[in-house]
Amino acid sequence: MPDWLRARSRATPDKLAVLCDGRSVSYTELDRLADGLAAGLIASGVQPGDRVAARLPSSIEYVALIHAVARVGGVLVPLNTRLTSAELVVQIELTKPVLLVADDGRQTADGGRWTAVTPSELTQSPSHPVTLSSRPPFLPSSAQSIIFTSGTTGQPKGAVLTFNNHLQSANASAYRIGIDVNDRWLSCLPLYHVGGLAVVFRSCLYGTAIVLHERFDVDAFNASLDADSATLTSLVPTMLHRLLQSRKDRWPASLRLILLGGAAATAELLAAAWDAGAPVAPTYGLTEASSQVATALPADARRKPGSVGKPLLFTEVRIVNNSAPDRQGGSLPPGEIGEVLVRGPQVMAGYYRNPDATARTVRDGWLHTGDLGYVDEEGDLFLVQRRNDLIVSGGENVYPAEVETVLRSHPAVAEACVVGVADAEWGQRVAAAVQLRPGGVVEEGELLAFCRARLAGYKVPRQVRFVVELPQTASGKIERRRVGEMLG
Amino acid sequence: MPDWLRARSRATPDKLAVLCDGRSVSYTELDRLADGLAAGLIASGVQPGDRVAARLPSSIEYVALIHAVARVGGVLVPLNTRLTSAELVVQIELTKPVLLVADDGRQTADGGRWTAVTPSELTQSPSHPVTLSSRPPFLPSSAQSIIFTSGTTGQPKGAVLTFNNHLQSANASAYRIGIDVNDRWLSCLPLYHVGGLAVVFRSCLYGTAIVLHERFDVDAFNASLDADSATLTSLVPTMLHRLLQSRKDRWPASLRLILLGGAAATAELLAAAWDAGAPVAPTYGLTEASSQVATALPADARRKPGSVGKPLLFTEVRIVNNSAPDRQGGSLPPGEIGEVLVRGPQVMAGYYRNPDATARTVRDGWLHTGDLGYVDEEGDLFLVQRRNDLIVSGGENVYPAEVETVLRSHPAVAEACVVGVADAEWGQRVAAAVQLRPGGVVEEGELLAFCRARLAGYKVPRQVRFVVELPQTASGKIERRRVGEMLG
Repeated sequence: MPDWLRARSRATPDKLAVLCDGRSVSYTELDRLADGLAAGLIASGVQPGDRVAARLPSSIEYVALIHAVARVGGVLVPLNTRLTSAELVVQIELTKPVLLVADDGRQTADGGRWTAVTPSELTQSPSHPVTLSSRPPFLPSSAQSIIFTSGTTGQPKGAVLTFNNHLQSANASAYRIGIDVNDRWLSCLPLYHVGGLAVVFRSCLYGTAIVLHERFDVDAFNASLDADSATLTSLVPTMLHRLLQSRKDRWPASLRLILLGGAAATAELLAAAWDAGAPVAPTYGLTEASSQVATALPADARRKPGSVGKPLLFTEVRIVNNSAPDRQGGSLPPGEIGEVLVRGPQVMAGYYRNPDATARTVRDGWLHTGDLGYVDEEGDLFLVQRRNDLIVSGGENVYPAEVETVLRSHPAVAEACVVGVADAEWGQRVAAAVQLRPGGVVEEGELLAFCRARLAGYKVPRQVRFVVELPQTASGKIERRRVGEMLG
Repeated sequence: MPDWLRARSRATPDKLAVLCDGRSVSYTELDRLADGLAAGLIASGVQPGDRVAARLPSSIEYVALIHAVARVGGVLVPLNTRLTSAELVVQIELTKPVLLVADDGRQTADGGRWTAVTPSELTQSPSHPVTLSSRPPFLPSSAQSIIFTSGTTGQPKGAVLTFNNHLQSANASAYRIGIDVNDRWLSCLPLYHVGGLAVVFRSCLYGTAIVLHERFDVDAFNASLDADSATLTSLVPTMLHRLLQSRKDRWPASLRLILLGGAAATAELLAAAWDAGAPVAPTYGLTEASSQVATALPADARRKPGSVGKPLLFTEVRIVNNSAPDRQGGSLPPGEIGEVLVRGPQVMAGYYRNPDATARTVRDGWLHTGDLGYVDEEGDLFLVQRRNDLIVSGGENVYPAEVETVLRSHPAVAEACVVGVADAEWGQRVAAAVQLRPGGVVEEGELLAFCRARLAGYKVPRQVRFVVELPQTASGKIERRRVGEMLG
């Protein structure tokens, strides 16, 4: 398999590749940027198989870096720019990158243990011509990226996605939503999210353009939607909610599809979107499956509200009883709720250096998502609840266990339970019930400051309730659902 | 890799799969038809790896059979319906199919040595339920079909195309021309041609529809173009020529692309097409590369008339000096004419049971096409001449050596040279110069009848000139070019 960007720049050299912040590059120009970065990576000692971490805002240079890391045989580790230094250290220590690429203002070095270089330093670094010819070709089974996701344990896990994963995901997506050779994908999801990264690969393979925004800003998004002839976009419900509130004009006819994923959309939100003429396609996807698993095209979604449609081609979904011992047993019949299992060529190779978690999560090729849902008689998928206790707030995944671990590490706290509470704008907001130790004293403000020092801002609880005792089951497990009712 | 049609029928069960002769089937219905045929194939004793030959006109049943053969692990050998019995015997003896599927009126049995079954007999044959579960999954490297092509030797060779070849071809095509989920591909190329067969796989993978015509009929084509909302079609220059002469209305706006392949189109034909508003995309493809290799989109083709555009993504083309010893040596610089070499994942596995021809044709992954062409400074490909002496007449390939072998086998003929002569309607027509033996006597009518008994009609010379002696080079080789000038 040849280098994707190089192949693309040969196939359509002059086509628009990325438009970002008023600047645009063709595929030839993006290819040259990637060459410059690749030379810098090699000069920095990056060898095939080495991890290269990036902690960057979305930019043309970041897109070029994604291709450059592949070009030199490296494995990209895109880091969430919102994490605290302490959180980053865990991910860096797990993946041991040989290089950390970060923008000037956001040095992530932990006491000098990791020195970050900027993309421009990387491009300037080689003092002599560097040859790429010794680098291996793209192997379908090679890791392209390691994308972090947490889990019920709260320990971050790195999903290893191969070139084949990304390629098959891009093809399956095209088979569902089509490709227009003049497509422009307005992308405001961060590139460290699989949803943002997938757009980079799709565009490169299809030869279409990305209209890249560093972040979601409702006014900038609306202006770009009208001015930049966007045909596709990916949104999470919070973004769509804000757009519907702010947008006065009709949605432009050029926009052919809005992939809406990340969290379940309410019936009200979908109805409002359709009333406004927004071509929403509800989507189910997850990092471990390289993004899209199922998508309902707008007409199908209107006919069957709440569904995310049928699985993509070559993607299988089945529903199993997740309370059965070891989650074994056959598929549940249509209409019955159980755990969603996914199988297909886009399912990750595994979690990086975590064979136990991999073995628990991928069995016989079936990805155990932990999400709850059902399929109807026609094979359409409905998601009932994301991964058991997963909180999705404004498109960011928050794992209660991770927040609870931090709360519990405070000397005054005996026990904590973190839940997602319905929120009109954010989908869900993080809320915590905290049980103090006998004699323990801490105020809400102090506890939240403690959290902010250790957790990315979006994970910090928006409300805290101190309780005498958390509700427990007979077996002593905290009743998460009752806490939810209490805080909701 | 799961069964393609089954996966498709799960992904979009109700979508239109094929419309043919006023009858239409959804993907679910096509899947059921394929199940019926698959059961018949198993009941007929077809085992994984067995060849199943088909000699059928294009029909919904033929499309279902293509999928059914794959479903039972068989290898499809689509036979040209225009061949004589003697020509078929050569292809059948080479591939040794365990079953020959033919329509009622066209029994191809050679003295009873092969018994043909019809598709409906196949569907009715099983007297008990047949299980498909024991059949192997689709392996990317498994042969899906063997498609016959001749060569300069005139001996038919079977190009083995794998599932991966067809899949990669379909993806590369989509990356160039796009996919509209509502696409309808008006297809009048026979299914035994790679151009016709490729449409079956593309449509199944994309979930789009085929508007299938048994043959090219200019009135039926025009009517269907208007009535059936066709968005895509594949034509050879002869067809386009006739359409331009006959079509009074504007080309419908629904038609987004005409893939024009099979033979070089003249500048006059392209200009006439563009004047008429026909969205022609000149294409270069060949059986050994699973069809498309390069395609120029209409805007690019108009900008650069005569070009077939850049190679598809992941497809490489280079031009070498084909008069160099053993065709070795580096690539020729832009603008210099040489042999066109093609490399990519759609290049065939090889010629069936013909290691010598395979070794001559595919070296280091490079397919030596025998076609002459050049690339310009921008990497756009121009075809100068198809495979040395190949004659393309109305979209059918005629190999002079094959016709010459038949002519020479007549007792009165000493030597013969067959060439293509320019023809406004057919692109080229077959012409022969014949040198008789001393004392040999044969009239043109008798010699043509002799040919008709042994060759498909389209291969029989349209003109014969008897000569005293064929022009020869100093080394005694017939000067094909001088014969061409003599007859043209």
